[in-house]
Amino acid sequence: MAKQRIALDMDEVIADVRPKLLDAFEQLMGWRPSREEYAGKKIYDLAGAAEVRNVLHTKGFFADLPVMPGSREVVRELMEDYELFIITAAMEFRFSFEDKYDWLATNFPFIPWKNIVFCGDKRIIQADYMIDDHVRNLETFGGKGLLYTASHNLAETRFRRVNDWEDVRTFFEEEKKIRTGGY
Amino acid sequence: MAKQRIALDMDEVIADVRPKLLDAFEQLMGWRPSREEYAGKKIYDLAGAAEVRNVLHTKGFFADLPVMPGSREVVRELMEDYELFIITAAMEFRFSFEDKYDWLATNFPFIPWKNIVFCGDKRIIQADYMIDDHVRNLETFGGKGLLYTASHNLAETRFRRVNDWEDVRTFFEEEKKIRTGGY
Repeated sequence: MAKQRIALDMDEVIADVRPKLLDAFEQLMGWRPSREEYAGKKIYDLAGAAEVRNVLHTKGFFADLPVMPGSREVVRELMEDYELFIITAAMEFRFSFEDKYDWLATNFPFIPWKNIVFCGDKRIIQADYMIDDHVRNLETFGGKGLLYTASHNLAETRFRRVNDWEDVRTFFEEEKKIRTGGY
Repeated sequence: MAKQRIALDMDEVIADVRPKLLDAFEQLMGWRPSREEYAGKKIYDLAGAAEVRNVLHTKGFFADLPVMPGSREVVRELMEDYELFIITAAMEFRFSFEDKYDWLATNFPFIPWKNIVFCGDKRIIQADYMIDDHVRNLETFGGKGLLYTASHNLAETRFRRVNDWEDVRTFFEEEKKIRTGGY
């Protein structure tokens, strides 16, 4: 039987954009917001901070983001049982392509280039599972969607939520038990 | 009713890589092969010419390719009736990303960035039609595949063949008649 396919997002799922966004916020606004202050939204959606988002268009922004804790180990495990594709909405950011490509080669060298997708609209993607922090991507997805917790999606209740990579591991362990008729 | 979706390849379908590949061949090998000489294969599959393929990895190669005759006009027409996505296997070529992005912005500015996909393996793509010159992409595609004629696919008979963009226009006119119960 062909392996089932997982579509895995990058930003705020395996790559942590928050520290660099907070730095950019602080540089521009002169103060650093706490997690409580941007709960329910993106950091640059705080009042007067729209310009902070421009940092996403600068060369190098996506090149040195920290890896989300545990993501490397769990992704490697998942690749034993699933066909895994990185699906990232890079297309808005011309300068992100090479940075994202290099970041993946450095931090996830075991993911083949054939399994990387830079796109805009994720409706085009065909997979069995999608792990993403954006509700809009899960809303139009035909398979099972996992909502990876991020500040901007805290109020969302329609999708199975994963708070960290340990939660992702647990979810797929459950799926495996169901599939193999275990317990 | 939602529009049907077309997945459209770039190289050798809307972007003509042949002239620059022939230039690279001539520069390296000292002679220029005729169309008959590379019928049935890629230009760099001619004896001793494997190195010619390296030119695909150079910055700028994909930046100034000629537009395939008629493609711009027909793509624009198709976008009235279909949701059209550019699906290009760019992922093997790190330096092609910005070049391809800019090429599309220059030559097909009416295609939104949301409808552009850089990928490796096209099995992940969900669409109703795929226009591609590579049999391997059509073989695994779930919708209707159109094989765009290129030197390397001349012997192929399993797919509906389109020799140029006038053929593409005709094919979709026929589809429309069938769909709307015309004739």
